[in-house]
Amino acid sequence: MAAVTIDLVAQAGERIRRFVHRTPVMTCRSLNEMTGARLFFKCENFQKTGSFKFRGACNAVFSLSEEAARRGVVTHSSGNHAQALALAARLRGIPATVVMPSDAPRVKVAAVRGYGASIRFCEPTLADREATALEIIETTGATFIHPYDDVRVVAGQGTATLEFLQEVPDLDVIVAPVGGGGLLSGTAVAAKGTDPRVVVYGAEPAAADDARRSLHEGQIVPSENPVTIADGLRTSLSSLTFAIIREGVEDIGLASEEGIAEGTRLLFERAKLVVEPSAAVPLAALLEGSLDLKGARVGIILSGGNVDLSRLPFARGG
Amino acid sequence: MAAVTIDLVAQAGERIRRFVHRTPVMTCRSLNEMTGARLFFKCENFQKTGSFKFRGACNAVFSLSEEAARRGVVTHSSGNHAQALALAARLRGIPATVVMPSDAPRVKVAAVRGYGASIRFCEPTLADREATALEIIETTGATFIHPYDDVRVVAGQGTATLEFLQEVPDLDVIVAPVGGGGLLSGTAVAAKGTDPRVVVYGAEPAAADDARRSLHEGQIVPSENPVTIADGLRTSLSSLTFAIIREGVEDIGLASEEGIAEGTRLLFERAKLVVEPSAAVPLAALLEGSLDLKGARVGIILSGGNVDLSRLPFARGG
Repeated sequence: MAAVTIDLVAQAGERIRRFVHRTPVMTCRSLNEMTGARLFFKCENFQKTGSFKFRGACNAVFSLSEEAARRGVVTHSSGNHAQALALAARLRGIPATVVMPSDAPRVKVAAVRGYGASIRFCEPTLADREATALEIIETTGATFIHPYDDVRVVAGQGTATLEFLQEVPDLDVIVAPVGGGGLLSGTAVAAKGTDPRVVVYGAEPAAADDARRSLHEGQIVPSENPVTIADGLRTSLSSLTFAIIREGVEDIGLASEEGIAEGTRLLFERAKLVVEPSAAVPLAALLEGSLDLKGARVGIILSGGNVDLSRLPFARGG
Repeated sequence: MAAVTIDLVAQAGERIRRFVHRTPVMTCRSLNEMTGARLFFKCENFQKTGSFKFRGACNAVFSLSEEAARRGVVTHSSGNHAQALALAARLRGIPATVVMPSDAPRVKVAAVRGYGASIRFCEPTLADREATALEIIETTGATFIHPYDDVRVVAGQGTATLEFLQEVPDLDVIVAPVGGGGLLSGTAVAAKGTDPRVVVYGAEPAAADDARRSLHEGQIVPSENPVTIADGLRTSLSSLTFAIIREGVEDIGLASEEGIAEGTRLLFERAKLVVEPSAAVPLAALLEGSLDLKGARVGIILSGGNVDLSRLPFARGG
């Protein structure tokens, strides 16, 4: 865990404290009964911009020197990171540009614009996306903020776990969803650095099981165009996040697509929480038995709540 | 407010403290911007059994003498009060019987059974419902617990406001939805008894505006088979709740059916809270301008979260 240390996470916590919500921890008796564990949910669905991504983006933006900040920030993402970076930049009063494929859903374009970022459309290919970002960087001197392959971002994501363990100090286990690994690696650094006895698990869709395969094979095995309703978890690990996960994460649980839809429904129905499918993956991995944590005190990071309410994965005809 | 006093509410708070959740108060910046008010949401959707009704049922059940308790409790309701009474009775270890029409939705029957109550089906008429309840009372000596026309129930519902004003002491206004008036009358007693400067409003569907008409006409004007998606608010005031509301409630705001659906959607989308349509009525009354509370610090009681997720009022095709 050389690249990201508990000190960096603690510094991030100080840096972003004024800007982020200290999100509540919720419990739900019927979900305890269903899983046989004692569950604690860290509700990052209530975080600003609707996901934990605001923590990392905020830490990155407020880590910049005055001079660098003035030139702005840029990223390519059409998801939660784009909204998070847009708001973080607005709070610092600096320009943000988000590179988005020309076929990005209109609602996501509107959300990023709503937080005041500029949008540059590109062809929906990796090559054009990177070329467009590079051109902006070269023209404006803006700083590129990657969604997860960035020490500042990973340290920021870890701050959720600092708060979590302050509020519930005697957790046996923390489970976080894993896509690119920013949240999971930050969680591992924060948990192990606070209390080495806490066991950290990841959870991902069985249909996008690159993190599990990477961990088991000892090298990064990228997912290739995985199809899953947990749309925040389609990305693959980076060398930064993989190195941390190898060192600090016990294993990665899996969840089926049906299980993820059911987990999402249960969080709505029983816990009365609006979550996105990615956030339900840890619960689904427990319910399906891929992670057997019966009898344990289990902290689950509910990563976000940005779900298309007209297309809920469990609503009839939705 | 002779029948229900602040002392009774305070006693209820002590009595039920071990059993109820002290529910969180949430805020949401985008809903503040939309309404021009500073909103605080008391989240009774997170209460046990999914609604504030558990408070009143709990206070009623734990107010019974040992001898009366042993003979059990009975009610007729197919909604949140039935579930609440069932759980309260289970916690005291006494029998509960719920009289339900033979055509009650299966999911509601299952919920009440899930909390351990017996169900007695009756013809779906008011006459048979009351006759069936009376028969049970005469046979078993059970105590009838009305959903709102009961001093113990009203006092219990008021405990949400005691907690609310402890957590946010400088509210200018509290708004609660009104159906039979149990929540609104308990809210008025608790608010006025804690701080007479707090202004209390009710909010109800325009399609079931009996409370507003009753207040304006100075006598109870019942709704007759009103049709509204806010299914918790179809009932009419009782003499008990009307007397309290006349004395302690400033006015009743109204919300259209579209406004209620939109308010529900906004609470899901922006606040990430699962609420039932009845709970969204106060927000809808603010958004539609029926209650003009711009610039005020407004407490809203989110009454419950028991909504059929396969038939959300705002989901396409739902």
